[in-house]
Amino acid sequence: MHNRSRRWFLGLGAAWSAAVVACRSKSAGLPSAEPRALGAAVSSYGSRSPFEKTARYFNQNTKVPLEEASSRTPLHDTYGIITPSSLHFERHHSGVPAIDPTTHSLTIHGLVDRPLVFTVSELTRMPSVSRIYFLECSGNSSSEWRGGSTESDVQHVHGLTSCSEWTGVPVAALLRECGIQSSATWLLAEGADAGKHARSIPVKKAMDDALVAYAQNGEPIRPEQGYPLRLFLPGWEGNTNVKWLRRLKALDQPAMTREETSKYTDLMADGTARQFTFDMEAKSLITRPSGGDTLAKSGLYELTGIAWSGRGTITKVEVTVDGGATWTVAQLQTPVLPRAHTRFSGSWKWDGGEALIASRCTDDTGYTQPPLGELIKVRGVNSQYHNNGIQPWKVAADGKISNANRA
Amino acid sequence: MHNRSRRWFLGLGAAWSAAVVACRSKSAGLPSAEPRALGAAVSSYGSRSPFEKTARYFNQNTKVPLEEASSRTPLHDTYGIITPSSLHFERHHSGVPAIDPTTHSLTIHGLVDRPLVFTVSELTRMPSVSRIYFLECSGNSSSEWRGGSTESDVQHVHGLTSCSEWTGVPVAALLRECGIQSSATWLLAEGADAGKHARSIPVKKAMDDALVAYAQNGEPIRPEQGYPLRLFLPGWEGNTNVKWLRRLKALDQPAMTREETSKYTDLMADGTARQFTFDMEAKSLITRPSGGDTLAKSGLYELTGIAWSGRGTITKVEVTVDGGATWTVAQLQTPVLPRAHTRFSGSWKWDGGEALIASRCTDDTGYTQPPLGELIKVRGVNSQYHNNGIQPWKVAADGKISNANRA
Repeated sequence: MHNRSRRWFLGLGAAWSAAVVACRSKSAGLPSAEPRALGAAVSSYGSRSPFEKTARYFNQNTKVPLEEASSRTPLHDTYGIITPSSLHFERHHSGVPAIDPTTHSLTIHGLVDRPLVFTVSELTRMPSVSRIYFLECSGNSSSEWRGGSTESDVQHVHGLTSCSEWTGVPVAALLRECGIQSSATWLLAEGADAGKHARSIPVKKAMDDALVAYAQNGEPIRPEQGYPLRLFLPGWEGNTNVKWLRRLKALDQPAMTREETSKYTDLMADGTARQFTFDMEAKSLITRPSGGDTLAKSGLYELTGIAWSGRGTITKVEVTVDGGATWTVAQLQTPVLPRAHTRFSGSWKWDGGEALIASRCTDDTGYTQPPLGELIKVRGVNSQYHNNGIQPWKVAADGKISNANRA
Repeated sequence: MHNRSRRWFLGLGAAWSAAVVACRSKSAGLPSAEPRALGAAVSSYGSRSPFEKTARYFNQNTKVPLEEASSRTPLHDTYGIITPSSLHFERHHSGVPAIDPTTHSLTIHGLVDRPLVFTVSELTRMPSVSRIYFLECSGNSSSEWRGGSTESDVQHVHGLTSCSEWTGVPVAALLRECGIQSSATWLLAEGADAGKHARSIPVKKAMDDALVAYAQNGEPIRPEQGYPLRLFLPGWEGNTNVKWLRRLKALDQPAMTREETSKYTDLMADGTARQFTFDMEAKSLITRPSGGDTLAKSGLYELTGIAWSGRGTITKVEVTVDGGATWTVAQLQTPVLPRAHTRFSGSWKWDGGEALIASRCTDDTGYTQPPLGELIKVRGVNSQYHNNGIQPWKVAADGKISNANRA
């Protein structure tokens, strides 16, 4: 399913023009023939051009059923900060349930004065909030802990992050409706998928900025994102943003579900495990050009990528083209939004020799994205989760770009 | 094609809770049965839920071919500020051409030192800009000049406005590449549709913030929005944002195409016409509840809608529920972006009697959206275009909402 065709970067002249002038100016003023017949009619709900084939990647050679799988956003082939909903990454534990929104409901119970059931239609009539937020799976980039992915492009390695405008009702408003009790410190959030995916969420986060989301990029949430309702916890690891949300139970301690005991903990070198590591730390990636691309020839290139931080707002992205010896500040696409993908760009004059290119970001807590080696020093190499290390891409003298994390 | 089903606003109690508590609390703690079988697998390119039927509206009972037609965004049924690309309004003069991006090109010629032809793939490698901008057809809301649409809901009357994240190359960069001459004051922009839709654009605007756009909401522009290239002129009337862009010719005067002589001029009461009225003035609409909705019973309602200005940034939206006697400042969804839809909301306690509800907005030039009557005083009722008057909705005692512009 993965489309390997890429928009090859063209080495343009100092004013981005040499190649264009050289190849093209003779034919100027004579555009190619264009259609003379009427085109297609208006339609109810549009589709992309049949010439576009970019796809989410997923591994089809697996013993694990594709219902218990993930698919990855083509980060090298998306633009700006909004991820098209059709290309938002997926991670399912038991497939995408087909839920009728007229029968689905959200129950809030446990340590509350008034347990309540909310229908989807009731929730959509309440005061809502819309915000542009990233969502990243904590298992994103996991292959890099131990020497790099066998597939070494940005989609395969880092494609478990996406960014959408999410609309929903603040969980705080719902908990207040139910009269949440002062002894309640945790919520059990449970999905309506066959496996009843469930996570424990601190009430503090729920009262801060959590949403029961029902819309994504202006329309109802897509089925694979939790239609008709999902929990949305800005900046927190993907699996806590429980999809197909059916139940929030107020508790005075975490529920210790299988997803927080057997999974989604970070195994350290000494055999102990970190638990409830919710925040997705600051991270950035150069997405174009990146692993799998080939530079045609020496010249001026546009470098672009994305940065994000679960703890706040990106304040700076720096780019190196010499393996970290020197760093240059990149331009950020405005507005820069908290807990959202931030698009950065910069230009680079490639001299045709070997190069090591990478980006690193800093957020408004003052934290700077570390080299992967620094993370490994602290955490060892047992981890599956929370790799936010710098991603270096190696440019060979023939222009071929590969994952520099690979041995 | 138009789906008349609506999310009826539910009259909730003072804390948005009475109805929910009354109807639902008994069943709390017992969510309905949910699927036990594995759901659907991951996929390459996702689709919306089959339970969702919201559609663009278009008139199928017309003598004009549907290739020369428009379709309208379901503003009552979209959320936040991003319009789903599949529901972005359409306006075509000769249908949607099927263009192969590998053969399509953009020629820049006329009063330039170096006429050039740019391929799509060359353009996508150049430094780009991504911005969230609205796009509105100047014929939006045109029925209201003369007594109101026979179909009186917000989609039918005002659905020719949408908002996306657009990515492209600044036209200024391309004109500099070509060495635009100082005598060039206008550009002829021509599309590759069968009718060769063409408009004259002042070079000043082109050098300011115009884009040759190739992406919309993170992926290549949709066919009906100009795939693979469209001109994008932030804040300017839709038809100047030439789709399927094939040619920019630098001129020392406007080209006086048929689209700026026989069409897209504003006919005044005295028989003269205003020409080149490019800016879309500040405008706002209450979208929920709106014409066609019925309020179930008295109680507290969330009012929400969108505001935008082609001249800059929305600074204030006010809402009236008493036909303009008093106005209350609405809440704006942040960030408020220049030349983008801005979501506003407020709460309203409906007492069950007749009411006239409306919104008006102010932008950062200090301009406030006028009542339609004020526009008619100046321009008469011959106009087809540029109606940015206040839209009042009439709430009857039985809760039915209709277009108060209708006689």
